[in-house]
Amino acid sequence: MKVIDGSITTPKGFLANGIACGLKRHKKDMTVLLSTTGCVAAGAFTTNRVKAAPVLWDKQVVDSNGPVFALVVNSGNANAYTGDQGLVDAKQMAQITALALNKEKKLLPKLEAENVLVCSTGVIGVPLPMDIVEKGIAKCVKGVKRENGHEAAEAICTTDTHTKEIAVEVPIQGKKVHISGMAKGSGMIHPNMATMLSFITTDANVNKTSLQKLLGATITETYNMVSVDGDTSTNDTVLVLANGQSQIGELDETSPEWKIFADAFVYVHTYIAKEIVRDGEGASKFIEVHVTGASDKETAKVLAKSVISSSLVKAAFFGSDANWGRILCAMGYSGATFDPSKVSLSFSSAKGDIQVVDKGKPITFDEYRAKTILLEKEIHVEAVVGSGLAEATAWGCDLTYEYVRINGDYRS
Amino acid sequence: MKVIDGSITTPKGFLANGIACGLKRHKKDMTVLLSTTGCVAAGAFTTNRVKAAPVLWDKQVVDSNGPVFALVVNSGNANAYTGDQGLVDAKQMAQITALALNKEKKLLPKLEAENVLVCSTGVIGVPLPMDIVEKGIAKCVKGVKRENGHEAAEAICTTDTHTKEIAVEVPIQGKKVHISGMAKGSGMIHPNMATMLSFITTDANVNKTSLQKLLGATITETYNMVSVDGDTSTNDTVLVLANGQSQIGELDETSPEWKIFADAFVYVHTYIAKEIVRDGEGASKFIEVHVTGASDKETAKVLAKSVISSSLVKAAFFGSDANWGRILCAMGYSGATFDPSKVSLSFSSAKGDIQVVDKGKPITFDEYRAKTILLEKEIHVEAVVGSGLAEATAWGCDLTYEYVRINGDYRS
Repeated sequence: MKVIDGSITTPKGFLANGIACGLKRHKKDMTVLLSTTGCVAAGAFTTNRVKAAPVLWDKQVVDSNGPVFALVVNSGNANAYTGDQGLVDAKQMAQITALALNKEKKLLPKLEAENVLVCSTGVIGVPLPMDIVEKGIAKCVKGVKRENGHEAAEAICTTDTHTKEIAVEVPIQGKKVHISGMAKGSGMIHPNMATMLSFITTDANVNKTSLQKLLGATITETYNMVSVDGDTSTNDTVLVLANGQSQIGELDETSPEWKIFADAFVYVHTYIAKEIVRDGEGASKFIEVHVTGASDKETAKVLAKSVISSSLVKAAFFGSDANWGRILCAMGYSGATFDPSKVSLSFSSAKGDIQVVDKGKPITFDEYRAKTILLEKEIHVEAVVGSGLAEATAWGCDLTYEYVRINGDYRS
Repeated sequence: MKVIDGSITTPKGFLANGIACGLKRHKKDMTVLLSTTGCVAAGAFTTNRVKAAPVLWDKQVVDSNGPVFALVVNSGNANAYTGDQGLVDAKQMAQITALALNKEKKLLPKLEAENVLVCSTGVIGVPLPMDIVEKGIAKCVKGVKRENGHEAAEAICTTDTHTKEIAVEVPIQGKKVHISGMAKGSGMIHPNMATMLSFITTDANVNKTSLQKLLGATITETYNMVSVDGDTSTNDTVLVLANGQSQIGELDETSPEWKIFADAFVYVHTYIAKEIVRDGEGASKFIEVHVTGASDKETAKVLAKSVISSSLVKAAFFGSDANWGRILCAMGYSGATFDPSKVSLSFSSAKGDIQVVDKGKPITFDEYRAKTILLEKEIHVEAVVGSGLAEATAWGCDLTYEYVRINGDYRS
């Protein structure tokens, strides 16, 4: 597998565009993605009981097994908690996109609303201004082309400080197969959900059932292991589109090349999940917590997630403070079963590593050295919690003044 | 019941003191509380798997049913995650206090370690400097008297900006019965635990089993309904001492005066719980969330707690932003069962009230008026979630720059 310089349109047959249509002030806010041939689609969605209208629409489209040709995404308005009108508007967005693409691209067969996935992100509870949306989609569709992948990635962002994009290439059956991803993250990122907006395209030819299963397994190890602030959004969506244009034979879990594809697929999602926390709202540091020695996988996950989700731990990292007591404390209230007297803890970064607890015993350590290590932008926490064989990794960021500033005046 | 000007020593027979002994810099850090006759004691403790040594000691003392005469509390060091030495040190603190009180107060019968409760609060993982502690206790015991209740309340504080004290008086059996409380809170305050340090004294004569039962029930409605930052401490403790010096006959749940006592008891704990969040680390606003119309009590509690625990909701209140979408979102991911399309939401403060959602429909509201209401220091959120009969109230505070600042450099 090699990581290549590319975008969401790197896989064959994908075209895209992103433009500013006025939902946000002076920023791109409308994205359209098109595959020139029908795709099998897989999706994962928020576990929040309050589900945004586009989430409900996309579930229907993914479950219908019909070919998916396009995706339309607006930022600036989440179309969440907008009642029946929200559902009408989400379908309308699909319909407008289908018609505009038919007109612009002379597609055959003609697209219908049911061939188009829809995502929205932004403020909750405000009806979509459909006149602006309609004009925006029409304008966006006109520029849909292979070269505009980066523009598409830009227009899905909200408080993100940079786009999250990746493209990889793997050799399968003598052909070059591509997988690309783009995502928006920032706030409202927390374990146990389908998370934020993440879109994956591939020119692999993949069996739909196998793709959906692979996506489900991947999510538990990637998006569900990151946390920015503990809030699970109403709009979290991960969508995968596979159009088969690499010309390989259909892959499923029994294919000899499945592992090559699946590894690359997991790599792309892991990269995106980590990029999302790296760009967490106000984040100044990226924190990786690796728990080993747990009795079982679930215990390892719960412990790792509890640590990266603790406001006190996050604030300590912001202050570059080796306050390992808060890490133990967060593990203690996680609900997971472990023996605190068997825990070993160490911190590391590009400046070296330092152990602070050894099998339940605090180690007297050089505070100056600890500070030097923790002043770095990427911190790794290693927690050995016993002699079990299970391990898990979770990713998070620090809690900063900037997080409070951003979220204190996001809406107004 | 009347609230009176008083302190932890207002109930008859209680003496106290608080002094600075050098565990903290230039601040009071050692408290001793004494009852001149033996007390029945009730306690509630942290649910964190990592339990501080004094928590383990106090559980033993409370469960032993022996009379409790005294309480010693140090701040500046939590004696948590300090291994076997921590347990030895906690018992040693009880022993030193017993001996010092015997010497100073000529008490009969002579106190033993088992008559003394111990609490510690502060940094985790650092062994107690027992030489300082020993001298501190000796110095503190010398000044133990009725007049020094406020000093005792001061010395238990850590990042608290003010002491939390209350005293009430109720007439029972023709006598004046008193209940007093003092507490420390600030960070690491979160639902589902016994929370922070809270100490209650009363001169009522109360049956131990009834007292413990009443405490358990009170905690679920008070300390377990507040959240500052989602972290559950290793040291959370609530202790109640009843010495019976008001000369009333023993009260239990079957006594005709039980309700009078219980109501006053709940009042004291509610006051303290609210004071703790009002003084949450960095808090600039006090938030009360009242959920009604839920199908059952647990649902109402889970919804109310999820709202006050959300970092995004808290940051929105800091910015005085009527971002009700985040409230709906927090209710949605709480795990509780409710119908989002039946929810009504309104905000109120001393400046008036404003409804923002009516049975699932967002209401267009005057942003200027909403801002005026939310700029106040005390905000009430009213959420009607259906037509059920259950309700619950939770209390929290906003998330501020100051919270991040305090917790970014607490230890170093």
